[in-house]
Amino acid sequence: MIESKIKSVIRDVPDFPKPGIVFKDITPIMMSPDLSNEMLDHLVGMYEGKGVEAIAGIESRGFLFGYPLAMRLGVPFILIRKKGKLPYEKISCDYDLEYGTATIEIHTDAIGHKKRVLIHDDLLATGGSAEAAARLIEKAGGEVYGFNFLVELEFLNGRQKLESYSDNILNLVGY
Amino acid sequence: MIESKIKSVIRDVPDFPKPGIVFKDITPIMMSPDLSNEMLDHLVGMYEGKGVEAIAGIESRGFLFGYPLAMRLGVPFILIRKKGKLPYEKISCDYDLEYGTATIEIHTDAIGHKKRVLIHDDLLATGGSAEAAARLIEKAGGEVYGFNFLVELEFLNGRQKLESYSDNILNLVGY
Repeated sequence: MIESKIKSVIRDVPDFPKPGIVFKDITPIMMSPDLSNEMLDHLVGMYEGKGVEAIAGIESRGFLFGYPLAMRLGVPFILIRKKGKLPYEKISCDYDLEYGTATIEIHTDAIGHKKRVLIHDDLLATGGSAEAAARLIEKAGGEVYGFNFLVELEFLNGRQKLESYSDNILNLVGY
Repeated sequence: MIESKIKSVIRDVPDFPKPGIVFKDITPIMMSPDLSNEMLDHLVGMYEGKGVEAIAGIESRGFLFGYPLAMRLGVPFILIRKKGKLPYEKISCDYDLEYGTATIEIHTDAIGHKKRVLIHDDLLATGGSAEAAARLIEKAGGEVYGFNFLVELEFLNGRQKLESYSDNILNLVGY
């Protein structure tokens, strides 16, 4: 029900960010406050009372639902950012892109005593950034509770990279 | 009251992003769900019933409170992103940095009908990115309702750049 509503607004943009890729544009979700609130309520229902102690969102689309979900669950929100953006003491993790590598970072004090961290992002594709986020959480002293994605591109099998951290991997919409 | 609570958790990081700058690190706010919710409630109280028709958040820290505020007010959330991130047809705007320029973008269809848009970001410093956001909103057919910032560095006089778009410029915390 929620899946079909979300799919009806997600927009396919061909040849972005490069020829041959069909990009799933989620910005029409943000243009609908009713759908946004319904999705947030749905996410809250998926995790409320289930032992999530913090949520980590991956910059920057992972901030969109990650922080509101953390606020509604009453748990801290941890920012996982691209290299050079976090100002305080931090831990880094590199991961492979199709060409070259990227780096994400977390503040050393981001985890505190809240150990069981749900990693959230808008999209699971090949799983590179989510796997790097899981490594970061563990390096910072946390435990990976699970993974949540608004959209999963199932044909790319990204979840295979994540299952050694947690088999709790959920999406709202799969393609 | 809320101002002193926020100031008590914002962290000064000296020499970031470069020597001589004291950076206001807002990530400890996100680590406190109670303070986060209190700030969101406060923002809702500032704008509820006041005629805001959409909220535009500037990537990426402007997404953090911008989207939850839009959801609570029941209005669309418009993403203003760095160059090359938005997939669909878009409008661009350059602005000056201390060295060189930066570019931000908005989708051409982000503003449906004539919308009174509140521009939100975490920080008002010299006002360059907020002024560029205002130009983008107008180029896309919107009207600038006003500006909201979590933190304003008042000694930099950034609001001088913004007053020709709207004199409705509010912050939660000023330094």
